[in-house]
Amino acid sequence: MTRPSGRAADQLRQVTLTRHYTRHAEGSVLVEFGDTKVICTASVEGGVPRFLRGTGQGWITAEYGMLPRSTGERMQREASRGKQGGRTLEIQRLIGRSLRAAVDLKNLGENTIHIDCDVIQADGGTRTAAITGACVALVDALGVMKQRKLIKRVPPVQMIAAISVGIYQGEPVLDLDYPEDSAADTDLNVVMTDKGGFIEVQGTAEAAPFTAEELNAMLELARKGIAELFAHQAAALEA
Amino acid sequence: MTRPSGRAADQLRQVTLTRHYTRHAEGSVLVEFGDTKVICTASVEGGVPRFLRGTGQGWITAEYGMLPRSTGERMQREASRGKQGGRTLEIQRLIGRSLRAAVDLKNLGENTIHIDCDVIQADGGTRTAAITGACVALVDALGVMKQRKLIKRVPPVQMIAAISVGIYQGEPVLDLDYPEDSAADTDLNVVMTDKGGFIEVQGTAEAAPFTAEELNAMLELARKGIAELFAHQAAALEA
Amino acid sequence: MTRPSGRAADQLRQVTLTRHYTRHAEGSVLVEFGDTKVICTASVEGGVPRFLRGTGQGWITAEYGMLPRSTGERMQREASRGKQGGRTLEIQRLIGRSLRAAVDLKNLGENTIHIDCDVIQADGGTRTAAITGACVALVDALGVMKQRKLIKRVPPVQMIAAISVGIYQGEPVLDLDYPEDSAADTDLNVVMTDKGGFIEVQGTAEAAPFTAEELNAMLELARKGIAELFAHQAAALEA
Amino acid sequence: MTRPSGRAADQLRQVTLTRHYTRHAEGSVLVEFGDTKVICTASVEGGVPRFLRGTGQGWITAEYGMLPRSTGERMQREASRGKQGGRTLEIQRLIGRSLRAAVDLKNLGENTIHIDCDVIQADGGTRTAAITGACVALVDALGVMKQRKLIKRVPPVQMIAAISVGIYQGEPVLDLDYPEDSAADTDLNVVMTDKGGFIEVQGTAEAAPFTAEELNAMLELARKGIAELFAHQAAALEA
Amino acid sequence: MTRPSGRAADQLRQVTLTRHYTRHAEGSVLVEFGDTKVICTASVEGGVPRFLRGTGQGWITAEYGMLPRSTGERMQREASRGKQGGRTLEIQRLIGRSLRAAVDLKNLGENTIHIDCDVIQADGGTRTAAITGACVALVDALGVMKQRKLIKRVPPVQMIAAISVGIYQGEPVLDLDYPEDSAADTDLNVVMTDKGGFIEVQGTAEAAPFTAEELNAMLELARKGIAELFAHQAAALEA
Amino acid sequence: MTRPSGRAADQLRQVTLTRHYTRHAEGSVLVEFGDTKVICTASVEGGVPRFLRGTGQGWITAEYGMLPRSTGERMQREASRGKQGGRTLEIQRLIGRSLRAAVDLKNLGENTIHIDCDVIQADGGTRTAAITGACVALVDALGVMKQRKLIKRVPPVQMIAAISVGIYQGEPVLDLDYPEDSAADTDLNVVMTDKGGFIEVQGTAEAAPFTAEELNAMLELARKGIAELFAHQAAALEA
Repeated sequence: MTRPSGRAADQLRQVTLTRHYTRHAEGSVLVEFGDTKVICTASVEGGVPRFLRGTGQGWITAEYGMLPRSTGERMQREASRGKQGGRTLEIQRLIGRSLRAAVDLKNLGENTIHIDCDVIQADGGTRTAAITGACVALVDALGVMKQRKLIKRVPPVQMIAAISVGIYQGEPVLDLDYPEDSAADTDLNVVMTDKGGFIEVQGTAEAAPFTAEELNAMLELARKGIAELFAHQAAALEA
Repeated sequence: MTRPSGRAADQLRQVTLTRHYTRHAEGSVLVEFGDTKVICTASVEGGVPRFLRGTGQGWITAEYGMLPRSTGERMQREASRGKQGGRTLEIQRLIGRSLRAAVDLKNLGENTIHIDCDVIQADGGTRTAAITGACVALVDALGVMKQRKLIKRVPPVQMIAAISVGIYQGEPVLDLDYPEDSAADTDLNVVMTDKGGFIEVQGTAEAAPFTAEELNAMLELARKGIAELFAHQAAALEA
Repeated sequence: MTRPSGRAADQLRQVTLTRHYTRHAEGSVLVEFGDTKVICTASVEGGVPRFLRGTGQGWITAEYGMLPRSTGERMQREASRGKQGGRTLEIQRLIGRSLRAAVDLKNLGENTIHIDCDVIQADGGTRTAAITGACVALVDALGVMKQRKLIKRVPPVQMIAAISVGIYQGEPVLDLDYPEDSAADTDLNVVMTDKGGFIEVQGTAEAAPFTAEELNAMLELARKGIAELFAHQAAALEA
Repeated sequence: MTRPSGRAADQLRQVTLTRHYTRHAEGSVLVEFGDTKVICTASVEGGVPRFLRGTGQGWITAEYGMLPRSTGERMQREASRGKQGGRTLEIQRLIGRSLRAAVDLKNLGENTIHIDCDVIQADGGTRTAAITGACVALVDALGVMKQRKLIKRVPPVQMIAAISVGIYQGEPVLDLDYPEDSAADTDLNVVMTDKGGFIEVQGTAEAAPFTAEELNAMLELARKGIAELFAHQAAALEA
Repeated sequence: MTRPSGRAADQLRQVTLTRHYTRHAEGSVLVEFGDTKVICTASVEGGVPRFLRGTGQGWITAEYGMLPRSTGERMQREASRGKQGGRTLEIQRLIGRSLRAAVDLKNLGENTIHIDCDVIQADGGTRTAAITGACVALVDALGVMKQRKLIKRVPPVQMIAAISVGIYQGEPVLDLDYPEDSAADTDLNVVMTDKGGFIEVQGTAEAAPFTAEELNAMLELARKGIAELFAHQAAALEA
Repeated sequence: MTRPSGRAADQLRQVTLTRHYTRHAEGSVLVEFGDTKVICTASVEGGVPRFLRGTGQGWITAEYGMLPRSTGERMQREASRGKQGGRTLEIQRLIGRSLRAAVDLKNLGENTIHIDCDVIQADGGTRTAAITGACVALVDALGVMKQRKLIKRVPPVQMIAAISVGIYQGEPVLDLDYPEDSAADTDLNVVMTDKGGFIEVQGTAEAAPFTAEELNAMLELARKGIAELFAHQAAALEA
């Protein structure tokens, strides 16, 4: 099997994390997994949703969007259609759940952190790139919250990263790009913590069902790839 | 650990599949997993979505809803809110993907089968009950299609069933009911074929991350439970 | 004239009222008028709409829906269309007005009772079945309110029931089923109290205009049929 | 009993029908029932809704709206709320059904007549004024259709008019204005043909239930009032 | 060049301002610029939008609509389409900004004045007629606010009026009607105060770009026309 | 007067035009006016809107959006609110009209060019930056259309650019940034062709009305600034 990109089966695309990418947000990161490019911002607002008022606890929520021509064919703009599609809602729910695992919400005070992930160029793996970049933006936003004295100290963060794996032409491969994704038999998105635990595992048989062995092989690849992503995150945060 | 219901860790709730539950649909099944009750109908319509026209191939799509008072607290009716929520869209996309794995769409002619899963009483596991019941409704609808000569023969069906598993008080348990679901550390929905392959695996850490070992233990439980569901489906279809 | 069902002109279909049909709602009734089956729930919530706040008075409101395949041809799901149709809104306004006549709202405290009527199988007369069943669910909800000490005593209830009548092949008939309803010259929905007063009278000439004599003949039939419905309600509530 | 307006119980308000009120529509009538003022236009368009295509038959449909400050308190504009309310939909469905009784749709060719009834000032009875005015606009539109050779001859028209009646302070009164309408025990809208048949009878008990005797007394009043409305229509059409 | 209407290049259409046109609104004016007819109401409500609460300052906001058959071809009703179009929003934003220039909002107390401009017949220039008429309605509403003691005195009002000018067949013309508007090379809407200052200048090249000289010639025409409009406003307010 | 940025009154911000910014679109330009950054894509699609079908003519249309945290305070995402706001619609209508002046639509064949302008960072002047960048993206898209043989030759393009000018602290200034824009007395957006003609002139008095002299001074500044923008466009297109 040869991957369309010529990568090894266990090889990530070029990963770049650019902090302070835009100026206004408390955290702003451009994340690139090869040709997939996502702007991730973390915006801090006082107050929490109604169900948390008075609890002293904070909240993290996420929204996701794609620019209409981030893709090969122009997609209709969701704002002009008047609603977000099912895929969009599914992805932003996943991002939100994943990021809420990064930090104990009790440590945020009654503040909300809005994560916005906007895809400016898509080549497969936008949701996993988004989670990986958003976690860095979240860390930056926590630093700003401390500076603004919204919180007394930056709380401990369990770093979160995500990658897609799949069965392509019968073999497990890491970090599917769009040509692989469209042709894969199985597609699995994995979200992990830097302690090695799973936060989300979402696998879908696109063509043939997959076996427990294939699942475990894919999880192993994911674990390896995510370990590299944690290194990228750490390097970016130290820069 | 004692389950709130007193069930053993690997014990399903009482499963009932009532065919021909309502009169108009080509397939109509009431599925009950304990107190969770879902009406699953399969409706046959001539024609396919635009992207399939002229291909000679059919389509299967699904929608999901909950009656406003199927739950402990009344939920706002989605029709009056003016949109379906993210959870609803996510579930109906899952049901649709799962059911499309049951039959080769090339065997349907240019017809669409609409799967509607409406929860009349919820006690956890509505999406897995829906998939399990909808597959039986689908089989009945295929029989009607043959009678109406929309297809020449009933195509081979790969039966599909689904169950939730989770880590409850540190132990893997099968078929979570609502009290378990709300308290579980991890929730995993598994969709399988009767050949033993996985169609969907969706695991979410609600509290602490889960390990590969826990994932495999849960998958093992799921496999056992789903095998029982296939027996229930077969018995219902023979009746 | 022979009715498609073989019933006498003044004969109701088989009427069944099943209380405690689902588990969560304060009142939950499955009402069946022949093949027409509607789940009616009454849900109690603290608080009232803004225009009643501070008045000490309660509120009763209703919503109505049909499962997509409750009908001979699948209807588009209103939640996915993004709005309720005119027929739906008209019917739920009728149900709400009718039920508010059952009890003096001053006796409810500042609580709201939501009536949800969801048609799981339609064969004509869904709105009249809904009103008839919902009144029983309302009585059950009042009992629960008393148990929960939301009200001191169960207030007096004026029972409400409803039936359709029409001119079918030139003759007045009671309780139209779908084949009659589609072919009727005139369709009249009548809502009454158990004291014999009219709450709503809504007559529509589908084909030819109707006369005052025909109207009175239809009202007479309705009165007879509704008297039987009150007996069914009473029997159900005594059970 | 004295009516707030000083009118006799069986006395209509001043009725005015101004044809050719606006310039563009094929039929355009300003109808005034006292201080209630409604612009009714009939617009002719080629083509019919999908369910009638190829039948050679035409269609009549209606929409209704109120200017935001046609009422004592400003109402929110439905266009900016993003949906029409239940009352609006109910009224426009009534207007449409009523006008479709005026003419045999087979005589219209495959053309659609859109009736628009827009209330510029409201003082009770807007729906009945709308129906009464719209029927005159419809007649004018049929004349234009003949001129434009869309139809060979103006088809026979069964004139349609409508009035409200009610029980006010215990007595039946004709043509309720807003102060009466808000205080009435019962409100009944009646739509009739010039042959004396009923097209719609919609009665609602606002406070106490009403009796068959009251209903018949109200219908008698309505019949008298509508006869006068037919005279107003005829005079307007002859002018 | 001859204008379709035979008017001189610098000649307004017949202008009429009818105060107290409808009964309920605090200010209600029918404005006519030839065949363009707009009902402008000013409605006073206690309270202000959230961003002004507690400032002691008032607010003026505007909405605009067209009756479906105010135009040569029937337009779809925005309330039934479920949203206001871009042109509508653009015009109502313009009306709102223009009217807020008429009075110092600090003089209104925490009250909101809603301006509603509804076109009942369109023949070009609806937005400029609307602004001109709405300013008179605003003055009337301020008088009512004083009577109701919502404000201590009627604040000073800078009268606002508006006109369209354009380049038609190569020459600047004043107050374009619909036939001119559809054929014009350039269309310019001008809003001024009675002190001679500009509030809004919105020019659009429909066909060929326009020059600074043409712009100045159009502005000169506008100034002349608006001076006449101020005279019409003053005469109406003195009547 | 000193501008917050220290710029001279007639000085543009740093202007950058980056072609081929994203990969999929036929034209893709990142335009920067200082800290204002907008991604402009031009997407080519076969077919035209209904009103142009069969005319052999093409169409250019535009959409505009802002990322939620492109601004100092996070704005609600329009896709999740379910509608585009009035400001958005107004801007995208302006962009569309402006770009349609760049090329004779008869030269496009029955193809549509979708212009998407998405603001990733806002600091005033987003609409003028968008128009200036989009015109370059349009030129690139025309080149691709020729390569793909959708058109025989690249048609002549009249370059279009836009700038804002205003009265800031009593003096006319060019290219307002956000701090100036929020404090300006008057704000004027000017769109011109490279032949020196005006396409759009939109001036709004934010505080005090403006005079004809001020308008002319602002237009003079705009003309100077736009000449520089044409040089930037030319340089980018030659690169």
